[in-house]
Amino acid sequence: MTNKQLILRKRPVGLPEADTWSLEETTVPELEEGQFLVRHHYISLDPAMRGWMNATRSYIPPIELGDVMRAGSIGEVVSSKNEKFQVGDVVSGWGGVQDYCLTDGANWYKVDASLAPMTAYIGTLGMPGMTAYFGILEVGQIKEGDVVLVSGAAGAVGSVVGQIAKIKGCTVVGIAGGPEKCQYLTEELGFDAAIDYKNENVAVALKQHCPKGIDVYFDNVGGDILDIALARLRMHARVVICGAISQYNNTGKIQGPSNYLSLLVSRATMQGMVVMDYAKGYGKAAMEMGQWMMQGKLKSKEDVYEGIENFHDTFLRLFSGEKKGKLVLKVI
Amino acid sequence: MTNKQLILRKRPVGLPEADTWSLEETTVPELEEGQFLVRHHYISLDPAMRGWMNATRSYIPPIELGDVMRAGSIGEVVSSKNEKFQVGDVVSGWGGVQDYCLTDGANWYKVDASLAPMTAYIGTLGMPGMTAYFGILEVGQIKEGDVVLVSGAAGAVGSVVGQIAKIKGCTVVGIAGGPEKCQYLTEELGFDAAIDYKNENVAVALKQHCPKGIDVYFDNVGGDILDIALARLRMHARVVICGAISQYNNTGKIQGPSNYLSLLVSRATMQGMVVMDYAKGYGKAAMEMGQWMMQGKLKSKEDVYEGIENFHDTFLRLFSGEKKGKLVLKVI
Repeated sequence: MTNKQLILRKRPVGLPEADTWSLEETTVPELEEGQFLVRHHYISLDPAMRGWMNATRSYIPPIELGDVMRAGSIGEVVSSKNEKFQVGDVVSGWGGVQDYCLTDGANWYKVDASLAPMTAYIGTLGMPGMTAYFGILEVGQIKEGDVVLVSGAAGAVGSVVGQIAKIKGCTVVGIAGGPEKCQYLTEELGFDAAIDYKNENVAVALKQHCPKGIDVYFDNVGGDILDIALARLRMHARVVICGAISQYNNTGKIQGPSNYLSLLVSRATMQGMVVMDYAKGYGKAAMEMGQWMMQGKLKSKEDVYEGIENFHDTFLRLFSGEKKGKLVLKVI
Repeated sequence: MTNKQLILRKRPVGLPEADTWSLEETTVPELEEGQFLVRHHYISLDPAMRGWMNATRSYIPPIELGDVMRAGSIGEVVSSKNEKFQVGDVVSGWGGVQDYCLTDGANWYKVDASLAPMTAYIGTLGMPGMTAYFGILEVGQIKEGDVVLVSGAAGAVGSVVGQIAKIKGCTVVGIAGGPEKCQYLTEELGFDAAIDYKNENVAVALKQHCPKGIDVYFDNVGGDILDIALARLRMHARVVICGAISQYNNTGKIQGPSNYLSLLVSRATMQGMVVMDYAKGYGKAAMEMGQWMMQGKLKSKEDVYEGIENFHDTFLRLFSGEKKGKLVLKVI
C-alpha cells in the first residue's frame, strides 16, 4: 500500500517556497500490536503550522526536518490491531500531511460522523473551534454587554469567536480582508459591524464602530492592527493573544505592539493562550457548540481544495487571505 | 509672602530642555475658608512626571501649559482655615514644584513625622512604595519560591519591589545601571543577584542567574530589557507593566516588545497597573511597610538635591541614572 507523504525539507525564511517540502511515496509498514491505520479524508490547514516549521522555542516542539509535515486530520480506520479503534471508526488526530497515518492512538479520538460533516470535526468542532471557545470564554472572560473586537474574523477561529460573543450578548466587531468577507460577517454570521482592513482605515472605522472603546480584543493577526486595538481599550480590558498571522512570515524582527503602554493606562491585561491547555474541556465544549450549530446560531464555512500535491499553493492561501472560511485539504 | 513656582511652558519632545519650564515668583494669596497653606520641605521627583508633560491620553490628565509642574510633596501646614488640618501638621499630597501650596485638602493626608523621616513619606511610604507593594503583591501575585526579576531595581519603586519579594520568600534578581548600584542591591538590600545593564550582556546574565526562567517580571523600563525578560518567561508567568523609563524621552515611536508572543508560548499574562487604583489600601500597606522598615527588612536610600532652581538638572538624573536611590528635591 502506497502512502503519499509531504516531508519537511527546509526551514523557510519568510513565506515558504515550494521546495520547503518534498512529496514522497512510501510503503505503509505492517501493523504492530496496538497500532491502527487511518485513511485520511481531510487535512486541516492552519496558520499555526507556519510557526511549527521554525526551530525556535514554542509551545510544542518544532517539526523536524525529514518528518511528515504536522497537521490536524480526520479519516477512517482501515485496519487495526488496537482494540479501542475498530475498522470503520471515523477518527481525528494529528495525522500530518499524508494519505495514511499509522498510529498507536495517542491523541486520536473517535467522532460521530452522522452528527456533523467530517470537516466540522477539524474546524468548528476541532482545534480552531476549541481555540475560539476557550479563548473568548476562559481567557477573554466576556460578559453580556461587552464590546468585543476580533481580527482574522472570517477565519476558522475568528468567525467562531465572534459568533460565541454574539450568543453571549456582546456587541461584536470583526476585522477581515475584503468586502466579501465583511459582508459574510455581518449578513451571515450576525456580527454588529465589520471592518475591511484592505480598503478601510481601521483606526477610523474602529472609532466609529466602538465609540466607547473595546472590552475584549481577540487577536489573531498582530502587527498594526494589534496596535490600533490597544489604542482603544476600555478600563480593565482583556487582550487575548491567540496568534499573529501578519508576522509569521516576517524575515525580520516580529513587530512588537508599540502601544503596549495602553495596558497601563487602561489597567488592561494581555494574555497568551494555547488550546492544548483546555483539552479536558473539549468534550463539553464540542457538545455545546454542536447544539449551537444545530440551532443555527453557530455557522461555519469550509474552503476545500484537493490533493496533497496542491498543499503548497493551498497553504499560502492562509497568508494571502484568498480563501473563504476554514481551509481544508481533501485527500481522498 | 513670596512663592517660587516652576511653571510648565512647553511640551518637550524627547529629553526636556531647561526652557521647558520657567521659574516664577508669585505672591501667596490670602486663605479662603476651608483652605490651608503648606510650606514644602521636600518634592518628589519620579519618572512618571515625564509622561504627565505629554498631551496624550493617559491615566491622569496632562499638566496644562502655564500650570505649576505636578509633583508629590511633603511639608508643614503654616496657616489654616480648614478645621481638619492644623498649623504644625506634617502633610503629604500633590503639591507641585513650588515652595508653598495653597489647597483645600483634597488628596492631602497627615503623616506622623516622629515615626519616619519626611522623605520616607514621599518614597517607600509614599507613591513609589505603594506602587511597589500593590504591583508585586496584587498584580504580580508572587508566592514563595517564585523567581522574580525587576528592572530599575535600584530606583524608588524597584528597590522596594525586590525587597518585598525577598520578604515573601522569592528568589530576586535586579537589573540596574553600574557596579555601585548592583553592589547596593546584593550587599545592602539582599537581592540574590544583580545585572549591570550598562556593563553586562543582560540576556546572558539573565540565563545564568535564572536558568529555569522567571515567574514574575516587574518592568519599570521597557525597551530591550522587556524583550529579554519576555524571552525567559516560565509557564503562567506574570509581567507587571509599571513603567517604561527607557521610552519616555523617545522622539520616535515607543519600542513595542517584539517578543510579546512569548506570552502565548508561556501562557503568560502582561498587565498594566496604576497605583491610584489601590488608594483604599494605602493605610494598611504603609503600616506593614513601616513595620518592615523598623525590623530592618525594608531599607531605603534617598538622593537629596536642593532648590527649585536646580529642578531641571536634578530631574534629568532620573533618566541618566545618575542618582543613588529615591530622587528628592529639598526646598527649605
